[in-house]
Amino acid sequence: MGVHLLFHMNEGQGDTSYARNSIIQKKIISVARETTKEAILDLYCAIKPERLSIADLGCSSGPNALQQISDIIDFVYQKCRQLGHPSPEFQCFLNDLPSNDFNTVFYSLPEFYEKLRREKGTDFGPCFVFGVPGSFYERLFTKRSLHFVLSSSSLHWLSQVPVDLDSGRRTSPHLNKGKLYISKTSPPCVLRSYLQQFQCDFLAFLASRSQEIIAGGRMVLTLMGRRSGDPADHEEYCFQWELLSNALMDMVSEGLIEEEKVDSLNSPYYSPSPEELNQVVQSEGSFTVDRLENFEVEFNASLNGTDDNNESKGHRVAKSMRAVVEPMLDGHFGGKVMDDLFYRYGVHLQEYISQKRPKLTNLLVSMVRNG
Amino acid sequence: MGVHLLFHMNEGQGDTSYARNSIIQKKIISVARETTKEAILDLYCAIKPERLSIADLGCSSGPNALQQISDIIDFVYQKCRQLGHPSPEFQCFLNDLPSNDFNTVFYSLPEFYEKLRREKGTDFGPCFVFGVPGSFYERLFTKRSLHFVLSSSSLHWLSQVPVDLDSGRRTSPHLNKGKLYISKTSPPCVLRSYLQQFQCDFLAFLASRSQEIIAGGRMVLTLMGRRSGDPADHEEYCFQWELLSNALMDMVSEGLIEEEKVDSLNSPYYSPSPEELNQVVQSEGSFTVDRLENFEVEFNASLNGTDDNNESKGHRVAKSMRAVVEPMLDGHFGGKVMDDLFYRYGVHLQEYISQKRPKLTNLLVSMVRNG
Repeated sequence: MGVHLLFHMNEGQGDTSYARNSIIQKKIISVARETTKEAILDLYCAIKPERLSIADLGCSSGPNALQQISDIIDFVYQKCRQLGHPSPEFQCFLNDLPSNDFNTVFYSLPEFYEKLRREKGTDFGPCFVFGVPGSFYERLFTKRSLHFVLSSSSLHWLSQVPVDLDSGRRTSPHLNKGKLYISKTSPPCVLRSYLQQFQCDFLAFLASRSQEIIAGGRMVLTLMGRRSGDPADHEEYCFQWELLSNALMDMVSEGLIEEEKVDSLNSPYYSPSPEELNQVVQSEGSFTVDRLENFEVEFNASLNGTDDNNESKGHRVAKSMRAVVEPMLDGHFGGKVMDDLFYRYGVHLQEYISQKRPKLTNLLVSMVRNG
Repeated sequence: MGVHLLFHMNEGQGDTSYARNSIIQKKIISVARETTKEAILDLYCAIKPERLSIADLGCSSGPNALQQISDIIDFVYQKCRQLGHPSPEFQCFLNDLPSNDFNTVFYSLPEFYEKLRREKGTDFGPCFVFGVPGSFYERLFTKRSLHFVLSSSSLHWLSQVPVDLDSGRRTSPHLNKGKLYISKTSPPCVLRSYLQQFQCDFLAFLASRSQEIIAGGRMVLTLMGRRSGDPADHEEYCFQWELLSNALMDMVSEGLIEEEKVDSLNSPYYSPSPEELNQVVQSEGSFTVDRLENFEVEFNASLNGTDDNNESKGHRVAKSMRAVVEPMLDGHFGGKVMDDLFYRYGVHLQEYISQKRPKLTNLLVSMVRNG
């Protein structure tokens, strides 16, 4: 079973669900909002299509799933009213892997449509939302069918564990012992494998989109990234994985998890530098970057501000990570150890947070499909 | 909460799931296959689009969900090879209400795509499948964006219980006492209400599709229907509802269900005659019917042929009805009585089947969007 069926956020509405632990991702969407607005209005004013086709790639299923689509509709509709233009029809595609909980998103659509009708009246749209199950590293849409693509907090997830590091595909010794991601102790070949996988995946992403997006169409993407060129600068970029590895190794030392299980697991994740990302865009050649910048989000942004329970900040931050990575770890280590693991992770995080004020570095990139 | 959230087939893969009790619907698809083939090939040869857009309205979530899409792809691809044409890109929309179990359909897509690639090679398509949550009695797609629409075993479900018969909307006495649908004992106003609701819904269906389907585009529809003009001919057309009402009234007589509960429920269902259907097409005016006919399916077609268990035919047929109507009845009578109700229904069905050889009458209609 490939990443496409195993990898998804925690489902439902429970305490460890993605729906209730996606505040960082919401924060990231809000940082990118102005860039998104500029890009969509430039596009709209240049083309003024009767039908505007938008895709959100990696929409997931929490309260954020319809947020960006909703923002874009607001921007365009407001501009139409300013200009005295009729509203375009909106064709909105929500993509994620087939294992994503689309049912929950779809269940919220009648209310979403009702709100649009109520707030915008009968002159508006209409707007049609479609679900698109599949990997955004492959083709998802017919040729020249999209005007605008966005993807938020998704492209740091690789299509697979780098081939050389995938224990399912090789029998040679594990190369990244005791770690889930790039670390100070990782040999250079590990860094190289991760970078190569990112390059290969992001190239496939751009090549697919270049066929689907019309000339002059646009993309606005955010993903976890780095400032520095050193992907192993774990103080700055890898601490969340480093601390999770530490929690696992604690459990190894107590005989609760086999060491080989930790050695054999590597996360299908990569946070590129702006230069690494830009280099792939250049080599693919179909898009021109008009904005590429770093921004930072407080790691504590995952806290929802309610300090009236007894949970430490560390444990609450651990939940936001759990919502994202549990399905992957659960399949590898078994569900029984998850509570213990994320409790320990919370302890490590609490210690770390109390000493530093960690931030998550993100990349924001806006680009145009060449004519 | 409207029909759009309450009404759906039984989920999952269990003994009473729609996925395991949809053999009649499969049979109906196979009867319509030749008409579908003629219609799609006429359309393809006339237009030869680079992108072929197909929608299946009311796809549900069982093994049938991808069947018709798959058939159409086969027909067109085979024709392309005969003619030496390049394969079009296929854009396939699967529609059902937002409460439909789309997750299960989406989960099966990677295998569906893999099979297409394996059987048809790299010259094919590609094919892209999208989920479209919403009521087909409203607009679902942007203007002039579809070539071909099909709908199988869905359009006999109304958008709502006829207004005059909906206990949630009126306080006057119940008009259709002890019955779930039109019956010999139903007063004329009940028949009129049902017909009016069908006319109103089917008109809305055609008006929506007329905006979405290009000139020369086509629809092939099947739905439960009648031969005769008399909608209350329960021997021929209403026996499945009549027997279900009888099972409910048995439980009323034993004090297990309140009579008022039965009196207040009417099914959002109507099986029209060819004339009734044709009259709506004429009055809407955007489509020309080129085929409209009755066909019959053995009610026993819901049996999967395995006679090696001890269940009576009646009970097995009851399961196929349960898979479709349980979510609606469950919400009204409560889940606790469902096993008892469908057991009793099975007894009534067994008695009926042993005396007669009941058939389900269907309508098959093929039409063209006027230019």
